[in-house]
Amino acid sequence: MVDNDIIVAPATAMGGAIAVIRMSGDGAIECCDKVFRGKSRLVDAAPYTVHYGRVVDGERTLDDVLVSVFRAPHSYTGEDSVEISIHGSKYIASEVMSLLVRNGARMARAGEFSVRAFLAGKMDLSQAEAVADMIAADSRASHALASTQMRGGYSQSLQSLRSQLLEIASLLELELDFSEEEVEFADRARLELLLKHTESEITGLIESFRTGNAIKEGVATAIVGAPNVGKSTLLNRLVGEERAMTSDIAGTTRDTVEAHCNIDGVQFRFIDTAGIRDTDDRLERMGIERTMKAIGEARIVVQMVEAGSRGFEPVKVNDGQTLIVVANKADRSDDRSIVGAIYMSAKSGAGVDELRRRLRSTIDTERVYSGETVVSNARHYAALQRALEALERAMAALHAGVSGELLSEEIREVLRNIGEITGDVTSEDILKNIFSKFCIGK
Amino acid sequence: MVDNDIIVAPATAMGGAIAVIRMSGDGAIECCDKVFRGKSRLVDAAPYTVHYGRVVDGERTLDDVLVSVFRAPHSYTGEDSVEISIHGSKYIASEVMSLLVRNGARMARAGEFSVRAFLAGKMDLSQAEAVADMIAADSRASHALASTQMRGGYSQSLQSLRSQLLEIASLLELELDFSEEEVEFADRARLELLLKHTESEITGLIESFRTGNAIKEGVATAIVGAPNVGKSTLLNRLVGEERAMTSDIAGTTRDTVEAHCNIDGVQFRFIDTAGIRDTDDRLERMGIERTMKAIGEARIVVQMVEAGSRGFEPVKVNDGQTLIVVANKADRSDDRSIVGAIYMSAKSGAGVDELRRRLRSTIDTERVYSGETVVSNARHYAALQRALEALERAMAALHAGVSGELLSEEIREVLRNIGEITGDVTSEDILKNIFSKFCIGK
Repeated sequence: MVDNDIIVAPATAMGGAIAVIRMSGDGAIECCDKVFRGKSRLVDAAPYTVHYGRVVDGERTLDDVLVSVFRAPHSYTGEDSVEISIHGSKYIASEVMSLLVRNGARMARAGEFSVRAFLAGKMDLSQAEAVADMIAADSRASHALASTQMRGGYSQSLQSLRSQLLEIASLLELELDFSEEEVEFADRARLELLLKHTESEITGLIESFRTGNAIKEGVATAIVGAPNVGKSTLLNRLVGEERAMTSDIAGTTRDTVEAHCNIDGVQFRFIDTAGIRDTDDRLERMGIERTMKAIGEARIVVQMVEAGSRGFEPVKVNDGQTLIVVANKADRSDDRSIVGAIYMSAKSGAGVDELRRRLRSTIDTERVYSGETVVSNARHYAALQRALEALERAMAALHAGVSGELLSEEIREVLRNIGEITGDVTSEDILKNIFSKFCIGK
Repeated sequence: MVDNDIIVAPATAMGGAIAVIRMSGDGAIECCDKVFRGKSRLVDAAPYTVHYGRVVDGERTLDDVLVSVFRAPHSYTGEDSVEISIHGSKYIASEVMSLLVRNGARMARAGEFSVRAFLAGKMDLSQAEAVADMIAADSRASHALASTQMRGGYSQSLQSLRSQLLEIASLLELELDFSEEEVEFADRARLELLLKHTESEITGLIESFRTGNAIKEGVATAIVGAPNVGKSTLLNRLVGEERAMTSDIAGTTRDTVEAHCNIDGVQFRFIDTAGIRDTDDRLERMGIERTMKAIGEARIVVQMVEAGSRGFEPVKVNDGQTLIVVANKADRSDDRSIVGAIYMSAKSGAGVDELRRRLRSTIDTERVYSGETVVSNARHYAALQRALEALERAMAALHAGVSGELLSEEIREVLRNIGEITGDVTSEDILKNIFSKFCIGK
């Protein structure tokens, strides 16, 4: 994964007025000079300067370009780099890149620029991952999440956790050196307090994942209810387009239909499910199974009933799921007997704003907007859970009065897991796993 | 169309690791400074320098960016400009642009950056049009065409034509001033020579359009022949994928099917036509009508017959069309009686390379690769034709011995038409027509 080759790749998508090709590595500027004809040579250029000229392949001019020159260590990768701004043609981009390859560069692998940035200490792992999240951000909230993480606010709070734990581990390990003298440098009561404090911090981070993940992936919201109660009509109303097919025939929606919409800076992922009823239709039954699965995975369940219908039974939701009951077709009935329900008409739109407000209020974006640490990355979440388990083992060991040696081992395990998030502790495998998901040119 | 507003637009497509937003106009650097937080202010920056910093909306950081600063007149538009390199997210791009709009910029219209470049004398009209062609270039030949035109080689040869004509017109007009003395400054014999020379140059340019246009738009190549002779099989073989549906049922292809492929640097546009035969099937007859139209518009007609079949009749082609006869299924017959035909098997691929060579040899790319002036733009072609008509009127007038005044008027008309190509003569309408076809951000 790691070498010192000169790597080249498109940094932008193609199809605009211009496109940018990025090249990095020891000798990247010299390599560019071989094909660049400008007023002066790029190797003589000051860093952070832009140069107009032509890219030539022998006698043939490939394009008129602007080249920006960056010098180690003050570049994205920490290496000598150039960014070549060309006309936005796929053909020209591929000609220029193959010319550079013939002159000593090689095509970059996915995420290779960011791997180098990480290895050069330009950013930690969680920051590199946030770059990918920044690019994918599609709402104010998901942008804020990625932004905080990318600019390192996130890493700082993990770092402070790590230094607390390191302090504990060091004290315990100091004891080992003096084990024959049976000294206890680490006051057991203070130790417990520190561990409890750490536990509550990690637990807080783990809990933040529920919100962070919902914001990052879109808040999964299942719309459920009996056939023909108006689920697809509501979905179309919420997203403002004809996303799901509607008709007055019960069972029109057979498979789950997904649609996205942004409510006040948060992306919601609505899942229109097949109506639940007893049926012999095999296809419809398969749809109902998928509905049950969608309900299980949703963050919010919107249960639709018909206003005035009898025998209302709220859907059972899991711990952590929010149930919102909507009584549809409220224009046809005066019954308002379901406490807490939103009485509405999906068809006319009356009451839909109230539903939007209720949906939005389930997602607390305060922490996200204020730049607090909110976990949104599944890899971090898993690492934090492993850290918590190790921490709990450490606390149990402390209560059982086991030796400082065992204790310190568990605490080292907590540290390892937290270190994996930022990359203080890392392996070729972890790097490969993370960066291979990046796009080429990042 | 023309004002001094600060305009902003995305310069690259979205979806890559980075994206570039371009802003230009008097005060563009100051406008960017309002939202940029870096080591120093951009207004104090030297031109052609790059600056790392953040784009902020009050307390909120929108992105970490690189800003390149360009100062009038040394920029694409000739105005003060910045290029802001952001993370390649559509969301961030739209947030940053709307922030800039709130700080004094407005969204650019299609082609507005290039209009300004033209008006600032940075490029002439034909060069601006070539920028669009550069971006669309998808083969070595179309790239070479656009490249020569963009770097002004094209304009130079038109300019030399113009100065010849201007010389003639001035001499004729000088006569007018001395008309009472009946002086002839312009020697009529020399005049005729000059006009003839100009005529042959314009005719040459007009003729070059046939090749230029074919290279730019892809060489239209109709594949025609009786049903089931193997036209779709040949098309698929040429483009190397299952583009047209094939079967052994005559009449499988009902509508024309188009597919592109690059043969040695030239893009060919193959049109698989419906087989021609008498039929009562209304749909099939419509297909045959479309086939006849495709044949009429093609540059090359590939006529397919079955090897060994009797009564070969070559398809009638227009002036300027090339006919290539292909005898297919040659593996099933020893008959080689059609002179000049390529005997082949579309199914096995035998003989297809010979067809490729024959196709490619119809397009002379020598002039294009050597940077000679080749017309590829329909607007230029039309202007040249109008110029030629005026020139012929001038020559007829000369032979008829009409006054210098009338003669000079016709020559002025030739000049006007040539001037329209480069924009020496222009109008709001011409500009609108050309630049509104550009993309936003160009």
